[in-house]
Amino acid sequence: MDEATLRTAHAGLLSSEDIGNQVRVAGWVATRRDHGGVLFVDLRDASGIVQVVINPEEQPDLDDVTHALRDEFCISVLGSVRARPEGTINPDLATGEIEIGASEITVLSPADPLPFQIDDRADVDEMRRLEFRYLDLRRPRMAANLLARSRALQAMRSTLADDGFLEVETPTLVKSTPEGARDFLVPSRLRRGSFYALPQSPQLFKQLLMVGGVERYYQIARCYRDEDFRSDRQVEFTQLDLEGAFWGQDQVLAALEPVIAAVVKALRGLDLETPFPRMSHADALARYGTDKPDIRFGMELVELSEVFSATEFKAFSGAVEAGGLIAGINGGGLGLSRAGLDGLVERAQALGAKGLVWMVVEDDGSLRSPVAKFLSDAELGGIKERLGAAVGDTLLIVADSPPTTRAVLGGLRIDLGQPEGHDELQFLWVTDFPVFEVTGEGRLVAAHHPFTAPVDVAEMENHPEDAISRAYDLVLNGTELGSGSERIHDPETQARVFRVLGISDTEAKERFGWFMRGLRYGTPPHAGFAVGIDRIIAILQNEPNIREVIPFPKTQTGLDPLTGTPGPVDDAQLAELGIDLRPEVKAALEEEAGGFETE
Amino acid sequence: MDEATLRTAHAGLLSSEDIGNQVRVAGWVATRRDHGGVLFVDLRDASGIVQVVINPEEQPDLDDVTHALRDEFCISVLGSVRARPEGTINPDLATGEIEIGASEITVLSPADPLPFQIDDRADVDEMRRLEFRYLDLRRPRMAANLLARSRALQAMRSTLADDGFLEVETPTLVKSTPEGARDFLVPSRLRRGSFYALPQSPQLFKQLLMVGGVERYYQIARCYRDEDFRSDRQVEFTQLDLEGAFWGQDQVLAALEPVIAAVVKALRGLDLETPFPRMSHADALARYGTDKPDIRFGMELVELSEVFSATEFKAFSGAVEAGGLIAGINGGGLGLSRAGLDGLVERAQALGAKGLVWMVVEDDGSLRSPVAKFLSDAELGGIKERLGAAVGDTLLIVADSPPTTRAVLGGLRIDLGQPEGHDELQFLWVTDFPVFEVTGEGRLVAAHHPFTAPVDVAEMENHPEDAISRAYDLVLNGTELGSGSERIHDPETQARVFRVLGISDTEAKERFGWFMRGLRYGTPPHAGFAVGIDRIIAILQNEPNIREVIPFPKTQTGLDPLTGTPGPVDDAQLAELGIDLRPEVKAALEEEAGGFETE
Repeated sequence: MDEATLRTAHAGLLSSEDIGNQVRVAGWVATRRDHGGVLFVDLRDASGIVQVVINPEEQPDLDDVTHALRDEFCISVLGSVRARPEGTINPDLATGEIEIGASEITVLSPADPLPFQIDDRADVDEMRRLEFRYLDLRRPRMAANLLARSRALQAMRSTLADDGFLEVETPTLVKSTPEGARDFLVPSRLRRGSFYALPQSPQLFKQLLMVGGVERYYQIARCYRDEDFRSDRQVEFTQLDLEGAFWGQDQVLAALEPVIAAVVKALRGLDLETPFPRMSHADALARYGTDKPDIRFGMELVELSEVFSATEFKAFSGAVEAGGLIAGINGGGLGLSRAGLDGLVERAQALGAKGLVWMVVEDDGSLRSPVAKFLSDAELGGIKERLGAAVGDTLLIVADSPPTTRAVLGGLRIDLGQPEGHDELQFLWVTDFPVFEVTGEGRLVAAHHPFTAPVDVAEMENHPEDAISRAYDLVLNGTELGSGSERIHDPETQARVFRVLGISDTEAKERFGWFMRGLRYGTPPHAGFAVGIDRIIAILQNEPNIREVIPFPKTQTGLDPLTGTPGPVDDAQLAELGIDLRPEVKAALEEEAGGFETE
Repeated sequence: MDEATLRTAHAGLLSSEDIGNQVRVAGWVATRRDHGGVLFVDLRDASGIVQVVINPEEQPDLDDVTHALRDEFCISVLGSVRARPEGTINPDLATGEIEIGASEITVLSPADPLPFQIDDRADVDEMRRLEFRYLDLRRPRMAANLLARSRALQAMRSTLADDGFLEVETPTLVKSTPEGARDFLVPSRLRRGSFYALPQSPQLFKQLLMVGGVERYYQIARCYRDEDFRSDRQVEFTQLDLEGAFWGQDQVLAALEPVIAAVVKALRGLDLETPFPRMSHADALARYGTDKPDIRFGMELVELSEVFSATEFKAFSGAVEAGGLIAGINGGGLGLSRAGLDGLVERAQALGAKGLVWMVVEDDGSLRSPVAKFLSDAELGGIKERLGAAVGDTLLIVADSPPTTRAVLGGLRIDLGQPEGHDELQFLWVTDFPVFEVTGEGRLVAAHHPFTAPVDVAEMENHPEDAISRAYDLVLNGTELGSGSERIHDPETQARVFRVLGISDTEAKERFGWFMRGLRYGTPPHAGFAVGIDRIIAILQNEPNIREVIPFPKTQTGLDPLTGTPGPVDDAQLAELGIDLRPEVKAALEEEAGGFETE
């Protein structure tokens, strides 16, 4: 098989300059239209579409093949390029001025009737699309996403290579060191009873590369998390991972910004303004009620506790006395009915609030609200003033524990103000994250991961819940794209962090001893970052979920409908690995298989 | 931590142009020498080495830190660049004309006593090197290998991106479809009793990308093989994988040659001549006795059966009558003693021959050989003529089944003629591979893989053992770097190949049904290739094994001595996965663990 015998030109690149030329094109039958016996075929290849015209009067020997043609047949066409007749020029098509008059058509491969149309307008169930992903990828939108992803990766790599970064591949059959999410395990056949794990990230290996003197590392790394899936997670995902020795936060941010800018340039054609704005974690929470603020719009949270310092309204005074926070947002001219306002109250409760106070500014400047009668004129005036209220504005106030007040108002702010889609791009660094988070059960967990440097080690031990770390996130339009930190580079600090986390020295040694030993041999200060590639590309492509930009994604429960994976394996294979299915699992599988057999 | 506070200059980039400047450098103490109280430190960072001089008379306050310094401490030094005193210039060092007079030294991290010296000349056990890989990577040779690997990957990607290839990531949690080597299995927690597999290659996904209209795909892909390891294999390895639609062999080879040339240019600075020579599989076997000939030297195999068509020497006539092959090589002036010649006979037997005939050309032109007396003058003359024998040459002749004769002479040829190392580079395409190989038990297996297109499908069915495929290998200096083929693109041919391989339609459907269904929707003709990245970089870096160019390799039995992986996991983790260790495996582990505990 020789390409020259199949095609000499790419469909989408033909133009009026080719008029008069004999060309051979190859691709897929995108559409067929029969106009009075003359067949018009839109032939699609990776470069685009060209119209092929088959006139049975001119080419009677093409009759058989012409009749056989169906949608998505793969064909090769020999013909001459000619101008389209006047009145039939298609300005929407790059090749709209020309067509190919076919003199020879070869069916390279026929196509069975399609499970769905290859047409961006078709609304097909996602499971069906994934089952026939190879057909789904023929859609122009999906083809554009594949192209965008490839360009984004190349833009990242070129920028980093030009900046002196080394691409280093870290292993993917690693030691199981679960931190939070669960590891996938891989049983070893040569050492039965022993297991590898798939990495959740290259974190410890990249830190050891810093110990190894690499100084600037990057990798576009496949990572794995066996967790119960939230709406937009995958069991395997790709991240841009980087690290620099003798570096702190400023160097990491300065290295990343041109990488992000190059991706945006490649996918959007935009010149992004750098440096990106920075905001501390505390400010982000105070002003936006979240650690990943969407700063494309205002509607900032305003603290109102002072206004109510002497209030007689029990719901507010009680909250303040309990150490709570009263704050509000100005939702602007929402023009909601009473039912609409009640809907906001319900939403606030769903977000965790005990209640929500709404107020609408009437034409005379007064505040209409179920609670207005409990508030003094000074308080009502204070609210209006602090929230910059104008006639018609709807004001929303929450009085609760500080985290709840912020989470509820932050959530309402997003509901009311967030622009649809991602035409505008607002990147933001959020810095100075806390070292720890307190779980519902009151346990401390690492806010980023336990290798993040605290600003002050003694402070971290004395007041862990207040301690600030040298960690930072990158946020785009309210979505976290990735996070990084300055790392702990001395083994003693590392051991102290483990202790505060309730990891005993023995356990730390067992899980991370090999890594902590590495820190004992002249480890440079170092810092780094990881960017979720699936997510940034999804946003830049204006896609609602990351599966649209992953060539062969899995469902939210880790299933690949294309191959039917995961699936059962032979007992013999398991025996070789030295493992058995538990009896109850085996019984359940057999029952299921029996059920299928009767179908 | 701010880099500016740690360094303002890179050690290896300083030169006499910097004389008089105050600089801050950071890196590792490579060597320390005390000359009459003055300390000379070679400070190493990723850019190179610079000499730091600490004079206690000039800087008495540095005394404490100076005394504490040990090899491989990570330090930051403030000082001024000055010319070295006359007579102390080091022409072997890029920075050999200058030194830094230290005014301030900060220990960023101390180092424990080292398990081995960071010195390319040190000969350290490989297990020890892998256990402390982060120290091993500080060696200049290993640092150079990491840099070379990064450059090679970037050269490949740039060349392919410029040529219009899309980088597409295929999944690594896939369906188990073992072909030859064993799959690693990954138990699913969300679907207990079900398993993913790790891919041996992206083969089927890349073919489905062709179905999906991608047309030009590449990926630098991590692949996995759970096989018993030969000397130079890894459980996980990296390959450059590519595929083109509407392509045949010529397009694949033409696309790959500039990629290889770019890698050679990046690592060796050489402009490689393209196109590479091509040789059919049959020619390679006939002339070199192997399908991966090292063509840097001649010593080709010469068929001698004709010379002995009427011989009375039983060992030869018997072989010919049994359908065997008599062939020889001219080993040149080996000058071997009788013991040396006997050694060749033993080596031939180890390679599978029943025996080896050696002949040495004496000064008078006669042939000295234990078998000379059984051969006619015409036969002796024929040997000399066919092998181009000159005085002093050693001729080696084997008469055996054709595969054995070729394998033995091919092996002896390598032993006697192959140049050491890889200073010269001879790339070669070997084409027209057979479709099948016959195993020792007489079973047919796919010579490449079962998705390779046969030249003639009917011929393949009628004479499978003789059938030729559209498969090709890339060979460098006698090592196979990778292989590819034109693929089967219609489901009927695919089904017929499976049948010849003894895979029933039912089994084919179960294992590959999802893939074969994909072929039914207008599959373009397509072809591709995969290059083993570890191996080409090892050769170009003149490394004896691929582990030297893999950042964190595993041993031949799949062990990572750095992390102690694979290792045991908790029963609770296994319970979550719905699996148990088999009782005998558990007992063996417990016995082992018990043994360790007494240590």
